[in-house]
Amino acid sequence: MKTARVAYGGSIHEAIEWEGGLKLDDGRIVGEKEVTWLTPVEPRTVFALGLNYADHAAELAFDAPTEPLVFLKGPNTFIGHQAYTLRPAEVTYMHYECELAVIIGETARNVKREDAYKHIKGYSVANDYAIRDYLENYYRPNLRVKNRDTCTPMGPWMVDAKDVADPMNLKLTTHVNSKLVQEGTTADMIFDIPALIEYLSSFMTLSENDIILTGTPKGSVDTAVGDVVVTEVEGIGRLVNTIVGDEFFLN
Amino acid sequence: MKTARVAYGGSIHEAIEWEGGLKLDDGRIVGEKEVTWLTPVEPRTVFALGLNYADHAAELAFDAPTEPLVFLKGPNTFIGHQAYTLRPAEVTYMHYECELAVIIGETARNVKREDAYKHIKGYSVANDYAIRDYLENYYRPNLRVKNRDTCTPMGPWMVDAKDVADPMNLKLTTHVNSKLVQEGTTADMIFDIPALIEYLSSFMTLSENDIILTGTPKGSVDTAVGDVVVTEVEGIGRLVNTIVGDEFFLN
Repeated sequence: MKTARVAYGGSIHEAIEWEGGLKLDDGRIVGEKEVTWLTPVEPRTVFALGLNYADHAAELAFDAPTEPLVFLKGPNTFIGHQAYTLRPAEVTYMHYECELAVIIGETARNVKREDAYKHIKGYSVANDYAIRDYLENYYRPNLRVKNRDTCTPMGPWMVDAKDVADPMNLKLTTHVNSKLVQEGTTADMIFDIPALIEYLSSFMTLSENDIILTGTPKGSVDTAVGDVVVTEVEGIGRLVNTIVGDEFFLN
Repeated sequence: MKTARVAYGGSIHEAIEWEGGLKLDDGRIVGEKEVTWLTPVEPRTVFALGLNYADHAAELAFDAPTEPLVFLKGPNTFIGHQAYTLRPAEVTYMHYECELAVIIGETARNVKREDAYKHIKGYSVANDYAIRDYLENYYRPNLRVKNRDTCTPMGPWMVDAKDVADPMNLKLTTHVNSKLVQEGTTADMIFDIPALIEYLSSFMTLSENDIILTGTPKGSVDTAVGDVVVTEVEGIGRLVNTIVGDEFFLN
């Protein structure tokens, strides 16, 4: 089962895939371009991983971490499928990052890795854009790097956990203007999903709709205004995002 | 005007101070021990400052920062006035930190310092406990240091911004078991409130109920289970918190 959240006709609806379009929770069938896609759940705490793929750490000339490098993201940064991301005029490097998003279901506290999967309700796709200008050091993905408005598209769907046979063996790809630019597999995570849930829940509580963005593989390069960036995780979803300039959002 | 949010009789109420007790939004008068105090607003994004008082940076043997060191905090860590904070059994150093909390009202984007105050709706008191065991470096207040469950009491009140003549000249004190252990003034912030709003809004949007925890002065020392920790900001509030051990929260 795949579920989305969309805005349509002035309200927010849950929706499922329906013959190439969407079926809303009130029974109406609509086209996928007729709705505004929201993040598939309303995010509570969002954890993101720095340098969780060894090849990506290497391309940034950092050592691979010896424990998870986790930072938080605020609600201002999230947008849905088919939405627009602002590339701030003053920045030099803005990189896409295709990531598998893990959505927590059941509360998790002191969970061991062998029990971790039962705390997951589903998966989605995120594009965790980074403004590389300000990435001064290994430890601190500064807010200016990772918390800009509109810089974290997520969606289109949440795919139920029970429908994903092996989340640690999914292909990740990014296409910019239809050209393949990033390719990897979740099999290459340094800290796998059970390890991340075990780690985080060892010192804090994870709750429903907490989200873990699990990091990106090698292949991040700069983007430009007008680029259409498609991040895809095999079996989970294909997330379309367009980069725009300041003039697009001018008040 | 001072307003609180409290749980009473199975629902959440706004409340004001009333003859030593509280008057709820439905008109009932209750004693301050009859309610469960919540954070005075439901926090949206919470920003916290590292090392924003020079004397505190010096006592931790760090250089004072040259730009704001800001990190985010998740909802799991917040509790209200008169609540209990867990000191995890395995940690060696847990320090209180008395802080002025700034609560955003009107949306802020690219705000200059001379206009910053009009985006603030009120002020509160926070105790931004730190688990010092894991503070490896200047840049990255790790989640284990600053995002433990129950480790950020905030309250009791939000005091309306218009009732605070000079937020940059307020005395901060912490008493542990009635003994004065920390004393400072908001006048000693390295980055003052207008600078913080200018900085954050220069690259992202601040929205209603976003909160900025503005940092703590010198005087943080270790705490023990059973300690009653009172953090107070002159004219804003007196926040009472009790430290408990794992047995207190045992499931």
